[in-house]
Amino acid sequence: MNIYYITQYITVIGWDALLPELEIGPILLMLFFLVLIAKVAGLLCEWATMAMKGRLIIPSVIGEILAGMAIANITGLFDFLKIAENSDIFITLAQLGVILLLFAVGLETPYSELRKVGRTAFFVALLGVLVPFMAGLTLFLALNYSTTEAMFVGAALVATSVGITARVIKDMKLTNAKESRIIIGAAVIDDVLGLIVLSIVVGISNGGSGGLVQTLIVSIEAVIFVLAIMFISSLIPRFRAKRQNEPKNDVCRPETPESRTLSESALSIALILCLGLSFASSYLNLAAIVGAFLAGMLFAEYRDKWFCKDKVDAINEFLVPFFFLYVGMQVDLGAFGPVFALALVLTGVAIATKFVGCGVGAYKMGKDSAMIIGSGMFPRGEVAMIVAALGLQEGVVSNSVFAMVVFMALVTTLVSPPVMSHFFSKKYGKTNKFAKAEEE
Amino acid sequence: MNIYYITQYITVIGWDALLPELEIGPILLMLFFLVLIAKVAGLLCEWATMAMKGRLIIPSVIGEILAGMAIANITGLFDFLKIAENSDIFITLAQLGVILLLFAVGLETPYSELRKVGRTAFFVALLGVLVPFMAGLTLFLALNYSTTEAMFVGAALVATSVGITARVIKDMKLTNAKESRIIIGAAVIDDVLGLIVLSIVVGISNGGSGGLVQTLIVSIEAVIFVLAIMFISSLIPRFRAKRQNEPKNDVCRPETPESRTLSESALSIALILCLGLSFASSYLNLAAIVGAFLAGMLFAEYRDKWFCKDKVDAINEFLVPFFFLYVGMQVDLGAFGPVFALALVLTGVAIATKFVGCGVGAYKMGKDSAMIIGSGMFPRGEVAMIVAALGLQEGVVSNSVFAMVVFMALVTTLVSPPVMSHFFSKKYGKTNKFAKAEEE
Repeated sequence: MNIYYITQYITVIGWDALLPELEIGPILLMLFFLVLIAKVAGLLCEWATMAMKGRLIIPSVIGEILAGMAIANITGLFDFLKIAENSDIFITLAQLGVILLLFAVGLETPYSELRKVGRTAFFVALLGVLVPFMAGLTLFLALNYSTTEAMFVGAALVATSVGITARVIKDMKLTNAKESRIIIGAAVIDDVLGLIVLSIVVGISNGGSGGLVQTLIVSIEAVIFVLAIMFISSLIPRFRAKRQNEPKNDVCRPETPESRTLSESALSIALILCLGLSFASSYLNLAAIVGAFLAGMLFAEYRDKWFCKDKVDAINEFLVPFFFLYVGMQVDLGAFGPVFALALVLTGVAIATKFVGCGVGAYKMGKDSAMIIGSGMFPRGEVAMIVAALGLQEGVVSNSVFAMVVFMALVTTLVSPPVMSHFFSKKYGKTNKFAKAEEE
Repeated sequence: MNIYYITQYITVIGWDALLPELEIGPILLMLFFLVLIAKVAGLLCEWATMAMKGRLIIPSVIGEILAGMAIANITGLFDFLKIAENSDIFITLAQLGVILLLFAVGLETPYSELRKVGRTAFFVALLGVLVPFMAGLTLFLALNYSTTEAMFVGAALVATSVGITARVIKDMKLTNAKESRIIIGAAVIDDVLGLIVLSIVVGISNGGSGGLVQTLIVSIEAVIFVLAIMFISSLIPRFRAKRQNEPKNDVCRPETPESRTLSESALSIALILCLGLSFASSYLNLAAIVGAFLAGMLFAEYRDKWFCKDKVDAINEFLVPFFFLYVGMQVDLGAFGPVFALALVLTGVAIATKFVGCGVGAYKMGKDSAMIIGSGMFPRGEVAMIVAALGLQEGVVSNSVFAMVVFMALVTTLVSPPVMSHFFSKKYGKTNKFAKAEEE
């Protein structure tokens, strides 16, 4: 079954050929199969978890990533879906999915709550950047790679890709747990730190030809952006209290006709804020999801007035699976064969260093919490791939090292959810108290 | 401010240039402005309605269409948004918006309810097809146009574009009103009839060169498709009652933890069904929205078990405004100058014939209802444009007639919402009883 064949076939009377600029039919068919495959893969994971009787938790997001890998790597079976890999429409839906996912997490993470864990989050982020960077650098220097290439590998180990962690946390209804806030907060901070590390590495590899100053400016802009939004968030509650003297209401109120009328505008305003700050963030060379999270955090200060969490969650149910299918599709299994052993070692280093670095950063909170946080920070994902691709383009990273980094990014992403779910369940129980509180 | 300028500017350290295949930044900026403009335009309409103290109701959808027109036609002001007109991503979001809108309407229109109005809807559709077709044909024959061209104009007057009507009905929370069901049912039937009329017209204009048989087959396939889904819908309640002997529950139950767990799968299943039938519909040369409506109608039989109306509505809040911006952008105001007088006459005929045709079809229901139904069937929208474009491509419709049809499609779309809202308010009151019932 080939989508192009169908496209040609449907133009029997020429009607479809005349639809302005774009044929929606093939796109609908593509989305139909993608939603279907994502759902089936997710259900298989749920069934597997049930069959394991809780000894191993396999979140449905793992199924979606594996489905994406299957689409990209199994010849024959999914040929009609190969077009998705290069479809701007699919990729955009995927990117909007992860952006709105981080926005939703932000919505449940008001700044006032984030600040309570700020100190811990900062240490987690700092150690979670330094330990992996130094380990990656040392390992590849010991293996006789060039200093520049070793630095790129180190930089690729730095930034946490918080998308999958956010998804697992949301699926487990644990956004309000202290550990979740630390993970998300630390991920935002380490994205900024990662940008600084990368800027320095790129500056050095460019031989300091004016690049270093420019990249430093970029880093400073990023820091100012994040701090400025946090500062604004911290002002909002005082500003609102002074202005209206309205009773502060921290829990989400049940819907009333009035709140519903208000909430009709809430989603639009939320989307405008989210899209605007996501763009600003990508404009400043930060990940767009950092801006999305900050937008959510900012909007959380108005959640008693403009309640839109349920609506954002509904949109995410539609969009987010596209992102994790997309993540899976980025994996080219064929490329890992020759460097498999070293790729495994690099992956082990990536997991161990974040676990130790972030765990030590959070040690004060107790062993259980430190383990949740350490495992939640495993995933490197697309940021690591971008760093390695940058080195590849600069001509200082070889193809084989690039393949290793991609492997590492993938495996850390797949390993994190079951491990983190396990530690979360250990601390909060199978059906956790937060989920219960929400249901009552 | 130019989006391309920004795109070049952000590649300071080459980071964004390396994002796989697609730069999300400019897309985020485009969507940011589109959501912002749609919201501002919608709010202006709400304020205008309030200022009119109910003498004239201007639904926010009108603001969105006018905003789309402004983007496409005002030079200078919106130049940075002109890329939206040709953006596959924007157009796809717009199309998904109207598809999910009709799906949502279908969700509130179970087959059992639709069947109650089936007879009336059929007469409304039939007269609403015959009267405009004959009037358009006669008018253009009297003006000495060729028979073929006059037939195309007649065919362009036939099919109702139910998107805007559906939106107004949903905004007024009147989906459960009898008149709403007749309008939607008649629109589905007249899309099928419209396809048959168009098939015959195209067949005749091709000189019967084998085309007529083929186009008849296409029409028959479309009829079978619609009837088959209606038949399946009619079987489901009996099938379910027999299988589980479960108590039939026609009203939407409040959410419980169990229903919430079920509803977690509901949206995915709903999307799969909606995308699948929308594709099937476009594959059979019907509008994709016909399949979407039928999918909603089918799924409505399971609404007690799989409840997902709120989630679909939330997704629509995000996507639907894109569609109406898109509709506005299709209008090229400059093209209407030379044929303005005749275009006005054609528009008058289009409005009068649907009003009379559909009104007579619904006359048994009383004058108020007939007026609601007649005015709800005004909009021709994109279907008329497609018919005229088809004639243009075949070389039997001139550019000036094409411009007139586009004008007619636009004005009928703009005129319908205030008129229908007026008649609806007259019958059901300002805040209607259905909305109240839903809120309690």
